[in-house]
Amino acid sequence: SVRNLGLEKIANTVKFPCKFAQSGCTLSFHHYEKVEHEDACEFRPYLCPCPGASCKWQGNLNEVMHHLMKIHKSITTLQGEDIVFLATDINLPGAVDWVMMQSCFNFHFMLVLEKQEKFEHGQQIFYAVVQLIGTKKEAEMFSYRLELSSHRRRLCWEATPRSIHEGIAHAISQSDCLSFDTPTAQLFAENGNLGINVTISLN
Amino acid sequence: SVRNLGLEKIANTVKFPCKFAQSGCTLSFHHYEKVEHEDACEFRPYLCPCPGASCKWQGNLNEVMHHLMKIHKSITTLQGEDIVFLATDINLPGAVDWVMMQSCFNFHFMLVLEKQEKFEHGQQIFYAVVQLIGTKKEAEMFSYRLELSSHRRRLCWEATPRSIHEGIAHAISQSDCLSFDTPTAQLFAENGNLGINVTISLN
Ligand SMILES: [Zn+2]
Ligand SMILES: [Zn+2]
Ligand SMILES: [Zn+2]
Ligand SMILES: [Zn+2]
Repeated sequence: SVRNLGLEKIANTVKFPCKFAQSGCTLSFHHYEKVEHEDACEFRPYLCPCPGASCKWQGNLNEVMHHLMKIHKSITTLQGEDIVFLATDINLPGAVDWVMMQSCFNFHFMLVLEKQEKFEHGQQIFYAVVQLIGTKKEAEMFSYRLELSSHRRRLCWEATPRSIHEGIAHAISQSDCLSFDTPTAQLFAENGNLGINVTISLN
Repeated sequence: SVRNLGLEKIANTVKFPCKFAQSGCTLSFHHYEKVEHEDACEFRPYLCPCPGASCKWQGNLNEVMHHLMKIHKSITTLQGEDIVFLATDINLPGAVDWVMMQSCFNFHFMLVLEKQEKFEHGQQIFYAVVQLIGTKKEAEMFSYRLELSSHRRRLCWEATPRSIHEGIAHAISQSDCLSFDTPTAQLFAENGNLGINVTISLN
């Protein structure tokens, strides 16, 4: 392959508009910066925040709640800063997601508990994380706290909610969330159900 | 194999003294209860509480601290209810134990961070737990809290300390302790060192 250095030089000096220009982004980039920007561009459409990636919906931030209420009707919503996210039948085999919504501070948060099967040995790991139906900037105004408790034991995790624009897949793959294995889950479960105390606070 | 039902019947009625009778136990048991008692018998000798099982010392509770100070001189001791257990070089390959002592409320506690290699995939899991140099009854008077914290993230675990008479192997195998994987450890480590805040309290 023969490199055309002249063309490469031109390409490196030309700026291209962001591919979300039609959605309102006015920025332009050298081709080598363009992909990185578009990943983080605030005009990139929002994907459906439901875990599992089976729903292909995408749209604007202000349409997300309408989409959830219309298409994902089975998701429960609780009001308040301090609620209990009850995951039932945590011993169900295979990979399972539990989802609920929490509304407080005039925002909506989606709580996700995901069980993954890891390794050949059938070990299961649970991941719990909170995402804001909002921008990354809005998410940074908040903290969330997840707590498992039982007689004389307590496990808790505090962090900044993810924005649904970033999604939770990366956080889960990096264990940047509350993660625990099946024996730990059993310490806190009652009759196969696991209650997670969720507290949202404004920084 | 022919069962001698007559002998079995006799055996089930006879009581045998606990094998720690010479150490002070005055109890007797049917043979089918004897092993379970002896596992929990308060007159059973204490084993060296250092993780790794390389030291074969055993003796009375009141000799344990002397043994640790004489044979395991390299273990650091900090005074106070609230200290930082600094584990250095957590990225060292293989299974590693970090150990230190904490003295408060006129008792000595041993803090253990253990890194295990799990599964063929080279995944590493860290387990942190606190054990009291004392009886199980004494341990139940206390709670311990382990906390990892960094900018806008916090992970904590609270539980009852183990007694060194029970040991920590069972707690670790059941994840009945603070457990986390390498990516989580990286979120809280600085320059390869992990600081764990340890707080002991009297119930
Ligand atoms: Zn853009
Ligand atoms: Zn959807
Ligand atoms: Zn006995
Ligand atoms: Zn020893």
